[in-house]
Amino acid sequence: MHYPEPISKLIDSFMKLPGIGPKTAQRLAFYVLNMKEDDVVNFSRSLMEVKRDLQFCSVCGHITDIDPCYICQDKNRDRSIVCVVQDTKDVIAMEKMREYRGMYHVLHGAISPMDGIGPEDINVATLIERLKDEQIKEIILATNPNIEGESTAMYISRLVKPIGVKITRLAHGLPVGGDLEYADEVTLSKAIEYRTEL
Amino acid sequence: MHYPEPISKLIDSFMKLPGIGPKTAQRLAFYVLNMKEDDVVNFSRSLMEVKRDLQFCSVCGHITDIDPCYICQDKNRDRSIVCVVQDTKDVIAMEKMREYRGMYHVLHGAISPMDGIGPEDINVATLIERLKDEQIKEIILATNPNIEGESTAMYISRLVKPIGVKITRLAHGLPVGGDLEYADEVTLSKAIEYRTEL
Repeated sequence: MHYPEPISKLIDSFMKLPGIGPKTAQRLAFYVLNMKEDDVVNFSRSLMEVKRDLQFCSVCGHITDIDPCYICQDKNRDRSIVCVVQDTKDVIAMEKMREYRGMYHVLHGAISPMDGIGPEDINVATLIERLKDEQIKEIILATNPNIEGESTAMYISRLVKPIGVKITRLAHGLPVGGDLEYADEVTLSKAIEYRTEL
Repeated sequence: MHYPEPISKLIDSFMKLPGIGPKTAQRLAFYVLNMKEDDVVNFSRSLMEVKRDLQFCSVCGHITDIDPCYICQDKNRDRSIVCVVQDTKDVIAMEKMREYRGMYHVLHGAISPMDGIGPEDINVATLIERLKDEQIKEIILATNPNIEGESTAMYISRLVKPIGVKITRLAHGLPVGGDLEYADEVTLSKAIEYRTEL
C-alpha cells in the first residue's frame, strides 16, 4: 500500500481493535493526523498508562490503579454481601445502577467446557478464601443468564452451600420497557414461573 | 463514573475519534487492557510518530515522512501530467488503482463559500508555481463530483488556461457494477451526454 510508514503502522494498530476494519482504521488514522497535538499525546500516554498502572485488585479481582481497589477500601459499603460477576465490566454496570452498596468478586470468565475453560481457570479459589476469612452473609450470583453463566452459578453454589452462606441469583423475567410480543419463550416462561403477587 | 483513572482517560481519548461513542470507547478501552503489551506499546508509539514524523510534501502537498515525498522523488513517473485532488486520501485512492503513473497536487480542501473557504484557503498558489517551473503538459482535475469540487475545478481551470496547459476533468457516468435503476437523474443525464461510440 502507498501510505507513508508512520501512518500505515497506526492503521495496523487500529485494525487490532475489535470491530475496526481496514476502511475505519484508515479513516481514524487520517483523523489522528489532523487532531490537536495535545490530544494525541494524551491518547498515546493513556494507552501506556492503562497497561502499566492498572492491575487486578488482590481482594475482589476488579481492575484498579490502587490495591485493594476503591470498592474494597470503602468503609461505607456493606461487607456482608458479595456480588459475584464474570467480568470487570459487569462491576461497572452494577455501579452505574447506584443501588447496590455491597462488595464484589470478579471471576474473570465462566466455566465453558466447549472453550476448554474449567473451574480452575476462573477466580473461584480466592472467593472461597474470602468466605472463610470475612463476615460474609450473602452471595449474589450475578453471572450472565446464558449456559456458561448458569453452569458457573451452579458450580459456585454447590461449593459455597457447605460453608453455610446464603446464596441468591439475579431474577429472570421481562426486561423493563420491553415488549411482551418480542420476549423469547424461555424468558416468558421464567417470567410466569417467578410471577409476583400484587 | 466508577472507572479507575487510567481507563477513564483512555475512554475519553477514544471518544475524541469520529464515530466512536461512549459505549464503543468503553469496549475498546477494556479491550486494550487485555491486549499484548507489545501491541499497546506499538499503538502508543505510532500515534506519536504520526504526529511527529509526518509532514506535507513541499512539492505536491501529499503527506509524507520524507520531503519531497516518494511520489515526487520517483524517477519512473510521468512528470508531464499532474492530477489535482482535494485530499491526501484521494491520492491513496488513485494509487490503489495502479494505473495512473503521473504526479499529484493536493489542494487540502475545496472552495466552499458556505463554509467560508475561499480560493486563498486551498493549496492553489503552489500549483501555479509548479506550472511555471516544471514541464507539465496536462492537468487532470480530480476534485469531488459535488458542488464544492466542481466550482474548485472551474476556478482552477480559469487560472490555468492562460498558461496554455491542457486541462481535463474525470469522466462522469454510471459506476461500474452499478444498476441503471438506482442511478440518480443527474448521473444518468451525464451518462447520456458523454455516451461513447462502440
